[in-house]
Amino acid sequence: MDINAYLESRTARIRQALERLVPPEDEPPQSLHKSMRYSLFAGGKRVRPILAIAAAEACGGDTSGLDDAACALELIHTYSLIHDDLPALDNDDLRRGRPTNHKVFGEAMAILAGDGLLTLSFQVLAQCRQIDAARRVRLIGEVAAAAGTVNGMIGGQVFDIEGEGQPATTQLLDAIHRAKTGALLCASVRLGAIWAGAGEEQLETLSRYGSHIGLAFQIVDDILDVTQTPEQLGKTPGKDARQEKITFPAVYGLDNSKAMAQRQLTQAHSALAGFGPEADPLRAIADMIVHREG
Amino acid sequence: MDINAYLESRTARIRQALERLVPPEDEPPQSLHKSMRYSLFAGGKRVRPILAIAAAEACGGDTSGLDDAACALELIHTYSLIHDDLPALDNDDLRRGRPTNHKVFGEAMAILAGDGLLTLSFQVLAQCRQIDAARRVRLIGEVAAAAGTVNGMIGGQVFDIEGEGQPATTQLLDAIHRAKTGALLCASVRLGAIWAGAGEEQLETLSRYGSHIGLAFQIVDDILDVTQTPEQLGKTPGKDARQEKITFPAVYGLDNSKAMAQRQLTQAHSALAGFGPEADPLRAIADMIVHREG
Repeated sequence: MDINAYLESRTARIRQALERLVPPEDEPPQSLHKSMRYSLFAGGKRVRPILAIAAAEACGGDTSGLDDAACALELIHTYSLIHDDLPALDNDDLRRGRPTNHKVFGEAMAILAGDGLLTLSFQVLAQCRQIDAARRVRLIGEVAAAAGTVNGMIGGQVFDIEGEGQPATTQLLDAIHRAKTGALLCASVRLGAIWAGAGEEQLETLSRYGSHIGLAFQIVDDILDVTQTPEQLGKTPGKDARQEKITFPAVYGLDNSKAMAQRQLTQAHSALAGFGPEADPLRAIADMIVHREG
Repeated sequence: MDINAYLESRTARIRQALERLVPPEDEPPQSLHKSMRYSLFAGGKRVRPILAIAAAEACGGDTSGLDDAACALELIHTYSLIHDDLPALDNDDLRRGRPTNHKVFGEAMAILAGDGLLTLSFQVLAQCRQIDAARRVRLIGEVAAAAGTVNGMIGGQVFDIEGEGQPATTQLLDAIHRAKTGALLCASVRLGAIWAGAGEEQLETLSRYGSHIGLAFQIVDDILDVTQTPEQLGKTPGKDARQEKITFPAVYGLDNSKAMAQRQLTQAHSALAGFGPEADPLRAIADMIVHREG
């Protein structure tokens, strides 16, 4: 399959839906909506919403109504980047090749823009009328848990901060990354599958795929922080080492980390063995996650 | 009715439910859950959840299952206090007579604790199984809008910040306070009414009550900032004037502001004229909001 054409068409769909769902820049308070849109339309790859769409496609049926729910994932991802970049947290000046949100709009607005995106994500899920209310509350519960404090994204961020300068153990590394990145990526796959009405067995299979690509994603992220230039990365590389973060290269070395990413990729493909060509987009996304260069 | 006994029993119910809904301090990441609980159990008056319960009681029927949904309002209120107190926003050291969250746990943890409480609030609403899914998604949509950026709490906070040092107009004052405090207070009343299955007319009536007490609440808040001592207030008074905030006393003077609060109280009572003694708690809460001293 032509993965580039696929990604381009799905990215365009997501962009259109986000344009519709997020208040326009001239809606008061203008500064706030400008700040939210600055980070939301900064050229993100829309990995999470596209994973949701691809998972729904793997389950069969028409997925044209899924875009709103899929966008909720991008709203949450974007809020987390804005808050993570704040001076009190990772203190990053550069993101996707542009100044971070608080460098442009100030810290107060960055905090509130993040809060606004997070709040909006649940409003969007509550109001996506393409699926019945029972399925919507299930999605909200799952997404909130994946973005939350217990084994979720916020919890992972705390593990990550508290791990700085600590002795790196494989156990801590695993806990950080399953929560920080893995939970929301896996929830993205599950969101698409639940949306499409997948049975429990199919959902279980796709969750395994989601866990493997979630882990692969973070391993590759850690590797790229060591190997890439700022231009390739769109953000400042080498920060993990300077902040003494617990990363895969730090714990396992660079070559072993690369082998681990490859192993996760193989396992992601194995999880999809029971699917036919309808899961080709999921396969191609897995390949892309592991072989990306920025 | 004995409003003190009423408040005491409802406060105890909310406290019990919060204890159950919020991860315990020994759940990892411990520091994060400690920080969330520090602000959540700091002696807040639980105005929003109690309003929800009182509104449901006014509509009749058993409200014992409402506690979880009502707690979602307190989670949102608490997150907003933590973020508002941050150095980049109102920069407050004192809240409810104790050091603010970031003074105890640091800015990073305060930001993440707020994010965690906000995320948890929607998880709680999605999972409150006492009502059907259709009603749950309606509540989530309403609460998210009231806490959101367009005429909601986050929007009001931006108006408030951007209003600092600006010429105070009655229009701007109104916009700030309807959004910043009024929206979530009104949503609290509506949440209880919707939960209890109120018809559209009853919901409309209770919303009017909610708008009046919402405005009264903020007028009194502004007045107390001028007239009270730190001991009475539990936070630093006089900050509005120093930050050149647009407040009711600044725009209308102290005496006029007091008369306006009284007028809002009268209108809140008028809105309830069609109700019998089942709305006595709502009446007593309105009186309490206007006559409180801290």
